[in-house]
Amino acid sequence: MTNPTDGAMPARFEHKINVTWGDCDPARIAYTARLPWFALDAINAWWEHHFDGDGWFQMELDHNVGTPFVHMSLDFRSPVTPRHKLMCEVYPMKLGNSSIRFAVNGRQDGVMCFEGQFVCVFIIADAFKSQPAPQRLRQIIAPLLRV
Amino acid sequence: MTNPTDGAMPARFEHKINVTWGDCDPARIAYTARLPWFALDAINAWWEHHFDGDGWFQMELDHNVGTPFVHMSLDFRSPVTPRHKLMCEVYPMKLGNSSIRFAVNGRQDGVMCFEGQFVCVFIIADAFKSQPAPQRLRQIIAPLLRV
Amino acid sequence: MTNPTDGAMPARFEHKINVTWGDCDPARIAYTARLPWFALDAINAWWEHHFDGDGWFQMELDHNVGTPFVHMSLDFRSPVTPRHKLMCEVYPMKLGNSSIRFAVNGRQDGVMCFEGQFVCVFIIADAFKSQPAPQRLRQIIAPLLRV
Amino acid sequence: MTNPTDGAMPARFEHKINVTWGDCDPARIAYTARLPWFALDAINAWWEHHFDGDGWFQMELDHNVGTPFVHMSLDFRSPVTPRHKLMCEVYPMKLGNSSIRFAVNGRQDGVMCFEGQFVCVFIIADAFKSQPAPQRLRQIIAPLLRV
Repeated sequence: MTNPTDGAMPARFEHKINVTWGDCDPARIAYTARLPWFALDAINAWWEHHFDGDGWFQMELDHNVGTPFVHMSLDFRSPVTPRHKLMCEVYPMKLGNSSIRFAVNGRQDGVMCFEGQFVCVFIIADAFKSQPAPQRLRQIIAPLLRV
Repeated sequence: MTNPTDGAMPARFEHKINVTWGDCDPARIAYTARLPWFALDAINAWWEHHFDGDGWFQMELDHNVGTPFVHMSLDFRSPVTPRHKLMCEVYPMKLGNSSIRFAVNGRQDGVMCFEGQFVCVFIIADAFKSQPAPQRLRQIIAPLLRV
Repeated sequence: MTNPTDGAMPARFEHKINVTWGDCDPARIAYTARLPWFALDAINAWWEHHFDGDGWFQMELDHNVGTPFVHMSLDFRSPVTPRHKLMCEVYPMKLGNSSIRFAVNGRQDGVMCFEGQFVCVFIIADAFKSQPAPQRLRQIIAPLLRV
Repeated sequence: MTNPTDGAMPARFEHKINVTWGDCDPARIAYTARLPWFALDAINAWWEHHFDGDGWFQMELDHNVGTPFVHMSLDFRSPVTPRHKLMCEVYPMKLGNSSIRFAVNGRQDGVMCFEGQFVCVFIIADAFKSQPAPQRLRQIIAPLLRV
């Protein structure tokens, strides 16, 4: 979902996740290892939203562009539970020559649950070889950058 | 597994993971979101190894001690595949009053695949309330600390 | 989602799943073990839809009703991929004294991908003891039964 | 692991799984959707054991043989917990011209937790096309058949 805004600021993207029983551990909160998984789901949804429905699967198979992760970092602020939807805000923070840094902030009922940063590199998928960010992607990403 | 060493250095702990077909994505490497999951499996195995088989499940239910994660950070150096076992070295780096920092380094065939750091806090499990690291745990952990 | 129908037939319930890169294995189709997971997500969504948003988590914790599985059976007809949404139709087939049988049929782009049947029993959650289906649930479920 | 037996009966194969905190749901037992996942891990381990370490990954990529699932059926007898190792016995029940049926029985501390049957078909992996069971596989599988 993108909320319309005036031209001064890029629209906000949030991916909604229905956290359920099966995501929770015996402490009755989402198991820690599910949280980076959710964050990756949200980043994939960000690609789908901005590139005509193309997520990692289509990027790799149809466009020969891969974006493997080289780094992730997460701070867990508050437990994630099935009591509220998990709203994952995603935005690109930095677009390097051949890399991209994303922020993913997960909130439930307005409370920040986790804040993460993720760095991916652009590769020629079938060669698993680094490449500069393709021009078509760069043009769409650049105006979405935020700090 | 702990390799015996002279008293000068704590023994090395490695947790072996059999990476399989179901862990891999269409790029034929382990899916990124599986890697923090593997690292957590390794930390749980570290607890089991040093505390008479008690992992997070027994710590929480039998001893009322929880160790939820407040931070994780991973650098991905090389893809993980089913071609070799994934050897996850785990050791505590820092033991604070009520927190513990772990290093988890995942290697395949001698190649560093990922390096991670994870911070957990000690809580009274049924109250979900912070507590100092229990003395019994502290005594076992302290000599295992490495930088 | 429920499509409105005349009173002669219960409304149809479908749960939509966004299959992604991370669900797929190196054959570029959803990994087999993901499919019963998706089916369970769909059954949980069926409960949420018909019981004011209460899924397994709320049933167990707020109402002390558990519905553990005693049987599942799936036939896989066609591969599941990220190319289309996975539409999982769920309906109760049989309501016994203390058990319920669900059908879950997963389709993509109109093609049947898998057909499954799942049997759950009703239990008093905190006692893990069998109980008859609670009257409130029975009243809602009975009119939804189909063959 | 294979227990040696006299020639009259094929050796027994069991795959050991360390069930942990992260496998459990708020009812403090392994989440239902983890159980077919464990069973598949066990079948993959059965292939690895009998074919020089080659599981599904190597069969597909190195030998161009795929064995997708067309059916699974499981009866859940008793909850799976982290209190004991989960011992998954695997054996082939039937070898058809181009299909194979496996039994997977999961036990903890001698108690039967689940009994499952799984049917796979042999395919030419890169063509996703049915093929008769390759002769090399057939020769190894045939003497392992049990009812």
